[in-house]
Amino acid sequence: MIAVIKQGTTDKQLENLSNWLKAQGLDVHLSKGSSHTIVGLVGDTSKIDAELLESLDIVESVKRISEPFKSANRKFHPDDTVIGVGNTSVGGDIFSIIAGPCSVESEEQVMAIARAVKEAGATMLRGGAFKPRTSPYDFQGLKADGIELLLKAKAETGLPIVTEIMNANHLPLFEDVDVIQVGARNMQNFELLKELGKTKKAILLKRGLANTLKELLMSAEYIMAGGNENVILCERGIRTFETYTRNTLDLSAIPLLHELTHLPVIIDPSHATGVSRLVKPMALAAAAAGADGLMIEVHNDPAHALCDGAQSLTPDAFGEVCSSVKKVLEVID
Amino acid sequence: MIAVIKQGTTDKQLENLSNWLKAQGLDVHLSKGSSHTIVGLVGDTSKIDAELLESLDIVESVKRISEPFKSANRKFHPDDTVIGVGNTSVGGDIFSIIAGPCSVESEEQVMAIARAVKEAGATMLRGGAFKPRTSPYDFQGLKADGIELLLKAKAETGLPIVTEIMNANHLPLFEDVDVIQVGARNMQNFELLKELGKTKKAILLKRGLANTLKELLMSAEYIMAGGNENVILCERGIRTFETYTRNTLDLSAIPLLHELTHLPVIIDPSHATGVSRLVKPMALAAAAAGADGLMIEVHNDPAHALCDGAQSLTPDAFGEVCSSVKKVLEVID
Amino acid sequence: MIAVIKQGTTDKQLENLSNWLKAQGLDVHLSKGSSHTIVGLVGDTSKIDAELLESLDIVESVKRISEPFKSANRKFHPDDTVIGVGNTSVGGDIFSIIAGPCSVESEEQVMAIARAVKEAGATMLRGGAFKPRTSPYDFQGLKADGIELLLKAKAETGLPIVTEIMNANHLPLFEDVDVIQVGARNMQNFELLKELGKTKKAILLKRGLANTLKELLMSAEYIMAGGNENVILCERGIRTFETYTRNTLDLSAIPLLHELTHLPVIIDPSHATGVSRLVKPMALAAAAAGADGLMIEVHNDPAHALCDGAQSLTPDAFGEVCSSVKKVLEVID
Amino acid sequence: MIAVIKQGTTDKQLENLSNWLKAQGLDVHLSKGSSHTIVGLVGDTSKIDAELLESLDIVESVKRISEPFKSANRKFHPDDTVIGVGNTSVGGDIFSIIAGPCSVESEEQVMAIARAVKEAGATMLRGGAFKPRTSPYDFQGLKADGIELLLKAKAETGLPIVTEIMNANHLPLFEDVDVIQVGARNMQNFELLKELGKTKKAILLKRGLANTLKELLMSAEYIMAGGNENVILCERGIRTFETYTRNTLDLSAIPLLHELTHLPVIIDPSHATGVSRLVKPMALAAAAAGADGLMIEVHNDPAHALCDGAQSLTPDAFGEVCSSVKKVLEVID
Repeated sequence: MIAVIKQGTTDKQLENLSNWLKAQGLDVHLSKGSSHTIVGLVGDTSKIDAELLESLDIVESVKRISEPFKSANRKFHPDDTVIGVGNTSVGGDIFSIIAGPCSVESEEQVMAIARAVKEAGATMLRGGAFKPRTSPYDFQGLKADGIELLLKAKAETGLPIVTEIMNANHLPLFEDVDVIQVGARNMQNFELLKELGKTKKAILLKRGLANTLKELLMSAEYIMAGGNENVILCERGIRTFETYTRNTLDLSAIPLLHELTHLPVIIDPSHATGVSRLVKPMALAAAAAGADGLMIEVHNDPAHALCDGAQSLTPDAFGEVCSSVKKVLEVID
Repeated sequence: MIAVIKQGTTDKQLENLSNWLKAQGLDVHLSKGSSHTIVGLVGDTSKIDAELLESLDIVESVKRISEPFKSANRKFHPDDTVIGVGNTSVGGDIFSIIAGPCSVESEEQVMAIARAVKEAGATMLRGGAFKPRTSPYDFQGLKADGIELLLKAKAETGLPIVTEIMNANHLPLFEDVDVIQVGARNMQNFELLKELGKTKKAILLKRGLANTLKELLMSAEYIMAGGNENVILCERGIRTFETYTRNTLDLSAIPLLHELTHLPVIIDPSHATGVSRLVKPMALAAAAAGADGLMIEVHNDPAHALCDGAQSLTPDAFGEVCSSVKKVLEVID
Repeated sequence: MIAVIKQGTTDKQLENLSNWLKAQGLDVHLSKGSSHTIVGLVGDTSKIDAELLESLDIVESVKRISEPFKSANRKFHPDDTVIGVGNTSVGGDIFSIIAGPCSVESEEQVMAIARAVKEAGATMLRGGAFKPRTSPYDFQGLKADGIELLLKAKAETGLPIVTEIMNANHLPLFEDVDVIQVGARNMQNFELLKELGKTKKAILLKRGLANTLKELLMSAEYIMAGGNENVILCERGIRTFETYTRNTLDLSAIPLLHELTHLPVIIDPSHATGVSRLVKPMALAAAAAGADGLMIEVHNDPAHALCDGAQSLTPDAFGEVCSSVKKVLEVID
Repeated sequence: MIAVIKQGTTDKQLENLSNWLKAQGLDVHLSKGSSHTIVGLVGDTSKIDAELLESLDIVESVKRISEPFKSANRKFHPDDTVIGVGNTSVGGDIFSIIAGPCSVESEEQVMAIARAVKEAGATMLRGGAFKPRTSPYDFQGLKADGIELLLKAKAETGLPIVTEIMNANHLPLFEDVDVIQVGARNMQNFELLKELGKTKKAILLKRGLANTLKELLMSAEYIMAGGNENVILCERGIRTFETYTRNTLDLSAIPLLHELTHLPVIIDPSHATGVSRLVKPMALAAAAAGADGLMIEVHNDPAHALCDGAQSLTPDAFGEVCSSVKKVLEVID
């Protein structure tokens, strides 16, 4: 970490600062230039509050050289993390395909979709039981009953299940859930992240709508700092000015995150675009860019005749995506 | 609410849709144009899930005419909401000045600042006990002890206290807190909002970093739908591409929110800009634009000699802001 | 186009509005609902100024049903546009690979890179002669001399050349240039677009840093409205809050633009990411998503030993990209 | 300027870099830390291309300590710039009020508005003759005839006129125009800026929709580097995710720009919000925040009965704004 010191700073002030920094257990290297003095900090600067440091009167600016995240940092953990999930795993050489309905609505629906997506090539079943909605008047999900239905589908198909948590107090309900999803709006719900850090569950952490990859990794760090290293990162689109899509899918996040961290990276083209016609091309692009897997919304026609999802695929369309993705994976090294 | 139907939609499909909408208790008005058919929905459309409706295969697009928020809507509640807080109140003709340290650090610190800001003209005392931090390694606040210290300061100065909650399970600790703050990162932590809706506490709800005013009002609606009408809205800056400031303060939110809702609107120039030199001009601008109050960070020199806040004012500087703001308020009708 | 009329509008006002609209040559369909009156407009609404209409006192809001762009609209031109460029063409079944240096610096440099990229599989040569720079003190390009050097490289290698124009007065210098590039910062330089619309040159139009796809298509419309249909669209990354990349590459633009328009879509992963390590994965992703081609920065080692580009590839690395892209194209239908 | 060198850089590479930098006329200070080597550059670093430097293989990152703009920099020009404009001036202790119609439409219209705004307190007349429009099918302005009408209004009222230029070739038409406006979309039309730098005209430079203040100042630098120091900066709203307003007015730009530069800062609340009801509160806020003036759209009722502007005020409403602004200015020091 480097701190640029303002001109006109007295030696006394500089000494105070440097003593304070040494008290944090850091080595301090001063280099006085003709115009500016630069303080180089060596040691575990991840524990230094850069914002507080930058707020010092005598500090002009602060620059981190090493990343503020450690447990998630590939530098200290070069090998890909592979997370066992039920009868499969996520990360490394495995390509995961998580599919299912946006919301769990009924036993018939979940069962039908679970069978269909397994048949089509899904490795895990997703379904929303607790639904974060912008409006208190919108459908909030079947909650506990929804999880029950997912577990039934798991029992029959053997597919591990992925479903979202919104409140740490609900953790007991997630006992038999294989992967607990943290939604974009809760990416910086630090209290929830801390509680999940105390479990050993696989956590699928979605990037916030306007968050940077560094912030995503710091949120993963919250979970890992608690002792739970089973974190799966998920890019699901960020907010931009584009209006044809709900969000903008940031696929450069895949190679970037693979560089920065050893954690698996999953792409959700359904939520990112909000347009079913865009799911296949974005799924292929994600595979080509090196993603560790996909998370895709699938509905079963009959039950959804009415609300044939803007972002959901039919089982057949999903099947096509799976086979095309396989073809792309075969030619990517 | 208006739904534009896609060309080529069959009468049968249209009938299904219209029956489904009537089943939601809405009046349905069809108007078939040469190129498009338009479905007008009359009734309590706030309970209609526009996203689901827009996702229908036969629907080209959906447009809300009436706002999706009701309890917070000025249309149904023309008079300003005035919320009693300890020995003062927020909203209407009162101009509130909430001041205090970013974080509660020690008894001396809180007491000194509390006395200083009261002296300078503050009507409430703020202080962070639970601190949301991007990094798990940054200072997380004194937690329960911090609240104790704020209550001591309240006992001596009589200033009502405002402090942030991050976890509904902590509510018992907030028994004697006058205003419970919901931070920007928790604006869409719907589970937390629901719990706060069950209390009668005054809630200061901060706008999320990349959220629209409609989303802010929908989050207020979550609290109000639970039965708690004591919501204070706070604009604290939104994320933009500008780098000289931490965030960009959106002052047009003041007159806009006053149009849309009866809830009070407070401005936080300290967090919005992250630069103490900008706090005064932005405070004056907020007053001129019709804000119901300000939330300003103040530190007490001695204890903070080292981290003289990038965004905190000294008590003297804060005093100047208060007197200048008063002058502006006198000339604004 | 639909206009929602405010409550309390008098019949007289409504009549004035509808007469004014009819005077613009549109059919006007009124449908009075219990709460709102809706005016449906049928005809060539692309000539209606929606912003002006929305600004009317009696109009609550306006919604376009048909797109405001016509010449670029696939609805009126279902077949892909294929643009002949020198000895090759862009669009349809052809996959174009445009490669070359960021800036033309010397004859040796351009010649060496031109030979290298042709050898590696490029179909066109790019190179900056006029360079838009944020600072007036940064290198502004070799200008006319740069174009001369590109033409020499074209003469030797036969590769058509692509280079940027910043000023319509320079058009005479572009006589023998095959594709004229309009940079992101000039996407809404309407005067320049109009002048290019008077030529028959192929125009590569880059999306602005914070522009929507609709705005990109409206800028293409400016060129096409002038009579020049030879427009190639280029996505080169949009501004977001992410800091690890210079911009965020929006690959969903590929399938979306293919839906909305018949014009070819080229992806520039070099400028979008600003990081050479990300060029290959993003190039593969673009191919998988259905792009009509790529625009990639390549430098030749010796001359660039010093400024080995953050975003430029060596000829060898570029060769790998070409062969990997070919593999992906073979498995994509 | 500071460059952080990557680990594993050889002394030879470091020597090459440092020689290259010295060749640019800079003093180079190396300071080798245990983990990183830091290169400090002293001298006129504004001429150094930071992007190129950062792109070097051996450079991890680059940090500017001094601003890249010089002529516009307050450090080298502490006193406020005051620009004479016709019978008035802009900057320093003067508060300018520029008012007029969005577009010049007819002699009656311009004359009527000119008289009305002068009466109400305007110091300059604005009006659009050349109109940048997103669609080629929207009204493009009266062009040369529009300027003629503005000059007639100037002749009668004595108000200096402000109007936008879109093409440097039109400069002869602007001979008698007092202030030439550069619109947001042309803020980085560097060729236009260079041509304006060769004139002595006062230039009102509008901030781009998604540009930073640093980029705005670099564009001012383009004009000033050409020899024209008469630049007036104008904040007119930036693009954000908020939908109730057309753009978001960034009022913190006022004190920030006053710190960074000696150039005057004008605020345009009409275009920024796009909502006439918000013009007054934002105008008062701008005055309270220390703006050097306002730019406000005013229409004259009769001619505009139909398109009573979403963002335009009536002369009476404008008059109220002027008198309220005056009151605020009196209490601001």
